[in-house]
Amino acid sequence: MIVLGIDPGLLLTGWGIIEALSRDKINPIQYGCIKTMPSTSLIQRLQNINIELQCIIDKYKPEVAAIEELFFLKAAKSVAAVGQARGAIVLTVSLNKIPLFEYNPRLVKMALTGYGSADKYQMQHMVKTFLRLKEIPKPDDAADALAIAICHVNTIKWTAKTTR
Amino acid sequence: MIVLGIDPGLLLTGWGIIEALSRDKINPIQYGCIKTMPSTSLIQRLQNINIELQCIIDKYKPEVAAIEELFFLKAAKSVAAVGQARGAIVLTVSLNKIPLFEYNPRLVKMALTGYGSADKYQMQHMVKTFLRLKEIPKPDDAADALAIAICHVNTIKWTAKTTR
Repeated sequence: MIVLGIDPGLLLTGWGIIEALSRDKINPIQYGCIKTMPSTSLIQRLQNINIELQCIIDKYKPEVAAIEELFFLKAAKSVAAVGQARGAIVLTVSLNKIPLFEYNPRLVKMALTGYGSADKYQMQHMVKTFLRLKEIPKPDDAADALAIAICHVNTIKWTAKTTR
Repeated sequence: MIVLGIDPGLLLTGWGIIEALSRDKINPIQYGCIKTMPSTSLIQRLQNINIELQCIIDKYKPEVAAIEELFFLKAAKSVAAVGQARGAIVLTVSLNKIPLFEYNPRLVKMALTGYGSADKYQMQHMVKTFLRLKEIPKPDDAADALAIAICHVNTIKWTAKTTR
């Protein structure tokens, strides 16, 4: 199962593609960040996110996608920016008919570290361990996206049909 | 010139189609509201907004679209809902290659009433007058969408090329 994890943002959207053979056997495929220029219009920025995300989907053909739930504790202005980017991302994924799952940030931490209040370093360390990487993935947004993809693999029910 | 005005929302997205022959000669074509069910997932709701907006675009073939800027003074949770709907709407319009213009709510009020702090009734009354309607358009979201479309017509520069 090829999983696309997404950490949405207007300035930086982290993404990560993993291949899950079982709950414990997860291979990293690729990860990165979609950047948009604050000097361009919001419309242009949402278009760019759509174009780059579409390229990633066309290239890696994920069967499922996972995204973090929107966090309300930030300032309204920041929620507005992330919210609009997230709306464009959710629509891009769903126009590709890829099932999309949403995960609470606390659940993502629980799934990776067994501890809902894990810090950024603990999370990144677990991403590195799960994917048997030599280094912690950079930038942080890409590591977060991989964490969300791993969370999905750890959360779903593995049926007999799934390759183990 | 066929203009699509949009008042974005997750629960209710108002829309209005007008035909502008000149700054003073504006004909109403159609207006309405896209409703989504709070009982369905956010993903499903954004998909429904996309599907219904696409139908409106296919049916009326607007040459230009206008949308209200996002307002930050509301609670973060409400900004998150409107923001995500707005992101999906902006992307739908731009995937159709329709130029999209954003207007500040105060500018919309100025354009219609000459007064940036006009109340809802004054605005709706001016929409009715501009479009020579017998009644104030209902629901409010549709009237707001028509106001945004009229604001665009009143704000753009009418060039020699434009039919007068």
